[in-house]
Amino acid sequence: MPETTETPAPEADAKPEAPAPAAPVKEVKSIVLTGFGGVKMMKVQQKPEPTVGEGDVLIRVKACGMSFPDLMVRQGVIDHPPKTPIIMGFECAGVVEAVGANVTDLAVGDRVMAFSDYKAWSELVAVSSNYVYKIGDNLSFHDAAALLMNYVVAYIILFDLAGVRDGQSILAHSLGGGVGHAIVQLANTIPNVTIFGTASSHKHEAIKSKGSVAHLFDHSMDYTQAIRKESSDGVDVVLDCLCGDDTNKGIALLKPMGKYILFGSSNIVTGETKSFFSFAKSWWQVDKVNPLKLFDDNKVIGGFQLRRLLFRQGHYDYVRKVVSRVLDLYNQGKIKLTIDSVWAFEDVGEAMQKLCDRKNIGKIILDPTAEPTPKSPEKKAAEAAVNSDGASGGDEKKEAVANGE
Amino acid sequence: MPETTETPAPEADAKPEAPAPAAPVKEVKSIVLTGFGGVKMMKVQQKPEPTVGEGDVLIRVKACGMSFPDLMVRQGVIDHPPKTPIIMGFECAGVVEAVGANVTDLAVGDRVMAFSDYKAWSELVAVSSNYVYKIGDNLSFHDAAALLMNYVVAYIILFDLAGVRDGQSILAHSLGGGVGHAIVQLANTIPNVTIFGTASSHKHEAIKSKGSVAHLFDHSMDYTQAIRKESSDGVDVVLDCLCGDDTNKGIALLKPMGKYILFGSSNIVTGETKSFFSFAKSWWQVDKVNPLKLFDDNKVIGGFQLRRLLFRQGHYDYVRKVVSRVLDLYNQGKIKLTIDSVWAFEDVGEAMQKLCDRKNIGKIILDPTAEPTPKSPEKKAAEAAVNSDGASGGDEKKEAVANGE
Repeated sequence: MPETTETPAPEADAKPEAPAPAAPVKEVKSIVLTGFGGVKMMKVQQKPEPTVGEGDVLIRVKACGMSFPDLMVRQGVIDHPPKTPIIMGFECAGVVEAVGANVTDLAVGDRVMAFSDYKAWSELVAVSSNYVYKIGDNLSFHDAAALLMNYVVAYIILFDLAGVRDGQSILAHSLGGGVGHAIVQLANTIPNVTIFGTASSHKHEAIKSKGSVAHLFDHSMDYTQAIRKESSDGVDVVLDCLCGDDTNKGIALLKPMGKYILFGSSNIVTGETKSFFSFAKSWWQVDKVNPLKLFDDNKVIGGFQLRRLLFRQGHYDYVRKVVSRVLDLYNQGKIKLTIDSVWAFEDVGEAMQKLCDRKNIGKIILDPTAEPTPKSPEKKAAEAAVNSDGASGGDEKKEAVANGE
Repeated sequence: MPETTETPAPEADAKPEAPAPAAPVKEVKSIVLTGFGGVKMMKVQQKPEPTVGEGDVLIRVKACGMSFPDLMVRQGVIDHPPKTPIIMGFECAGVVEAVGANVTDLAVGDRVMAFSDYKAWSELVAVSSNYVYKIGDNLSFHDAAALLMNYVVAYIILFDLAGVRDGQSILAHSLGGGVGHAIVQLANTIPNVTIFGTASSHKHEAIKSKGSVAHLFDHSMDYTQAIRKESSDGVDVVLDCLCGDDTNKGIALLKPMGKYILFGSSNIVTGETKSFFSFAKSWWQVDKVNPLKLFDDNKVIGGFQLRRLLFRQGHYDYVRKVVSRVLDLYNQGKIKLTIDSVWAFEDVGEAMQKLCDRKNIGKIILDPTAEPTPKSPEKKAAEAAVNSDGASGGDEKKEAVANGE
């Protein structure tokens, strides 16, 4: 048979080619939610290294931010919960390790922070460049992960939605947390603003040391009456991350021309696992509002959810402008990050329990390069006891680690 | 009996003193609402001259503004309707004729414009100095009465409630009216704003000649679909003076981060007299809104009612600041008043019918010094015919008068 360039017809007796030896799949350490429920549903697992598609950026993660939405995802108490198993996490900071096609404004080696639609709690994450922001050498990775979500949320609700002005008064809840700190610092950039806030009593000193807050109340007290004592006609702005009955109270507390913004629903979380009762209660407690009542009262109400805006509604160009303004404020020294504690991936359960118990003051950070806390036999026994009653433990030790960071 | 300075005890047989001859009560011409209903419920009557109390200013009225709220008062389709008979009118311009005790910032002879809680449609009105604003010689009384309420409302809803920014899009209704003109002109002071508006087709040319409006639709068409064709994700801001089903449409048309402001309910007015059907329909059509839905959608809704803010909620200091900013814009040439027509008190019925029929382009002004239009027998016959079918007449003649003003 003459030699030909045509493909030879397959022969029945042709020896099948041996498959090329598979390149060993590279794996990265990630925090995986294996199902909705308690802290034990989060496992540190090896996962295949993410690949970089067109427009994507691969980030070597140095720090991840943890916030209340992560806790709500774990419990499954969010709209449109994801399919499990899934790598958790919505924000991180790190170094660009690769860029996909058509990414022109970022290069390998850039220090960045980024939002991610899940998957941020991993040694490596691939993110659309729409959600990636360069940071300067003056911003550490831990601080960047503490800044991104909290200050962007605080900026948008304070300035673009509530439009807080000189001389106005603000009520905000949970001032001890990461976004609470951000609200206080950003509100303090406006002259003569009076801040009313709620937080657990043991956090009051720490909060006042970070910014000017006029009045702090424990949330368990009748804060409505306490505020009316100070300001009989209420407040100009309410920033509510709690929802439930606090929504009704917040709207009622508005002065004429006042603005109420709902930006979270942490009242839904009451224990370690989802409580259908608290979930339903929190939603049903919220009174519907007739726009004509707003017309009669001269009031404005609204809601804000950053992840929806970024990942479902596609307003990343707007958010990029906000990030840029927040970084300007950081560079002007108007933002001082407060990190509550830094945790290894392996300690994510303890970290999140601290958040759930509202024991953190400032932001909780996960660091994929951090060493897990060695567990002593006593500690393991204590944790076993703790897990059986739903409270947390071991904060003191972790805080010592964090303070040394 | 020795003379004493003590008051003598009354004596049973003392001759009663003759009453001092009463000074003739001075009277002023006023437009009085004698009861709720059609145009005939408004009568020009002589009323006792108002007296000036502490903190008050007596104004010799040169021009009065007429707006939709006056029409709604006449029909009794407002919350907390006043007791009739009552002198109508919420705004005027004129000259200070007397000042009460403790008025330090105004003097006899000052040219002013003022809000009044009713009673402005009179030759003389006494108003608390909280609601009186000095005007310069460069602002005529007619223009001042055309400016005050409309531009203050437009300023507050555009800038302080909706916070319109560079590059945003706005939907506003009834652009042909006084407040519509104000919205267009003030929105035009922000760079790159796109205005969508509704107005009767015959007004479109006139509206476009007064300011930059991108898209004008007749309200009777499906404006939602027309706007979606131009901007598939809707608009950033909706300014709604209609209420009813337009409220639901407006909220649905908001982009993420969009703001809807309800500042009127003119849909309630459908004929010459109160229609319980349209009243109920307009209110019941408005869907209540769950704040959690706003949270999911990233939307803000609110309401604004200037008279409530001024006279019930006491925020006149805030409004004074707004008036000052509006006057700055006028002095910078950024506001050009559009007066539809000027009417004598005696012609208030015709003037208001024109407003009711949405035939005005710009502001309708009443002038207590203007001569009533002489009625020819033909005109009287025409009016009689008109009154029987509910439409208006005589606009052409009035407009000729107005244009010559």
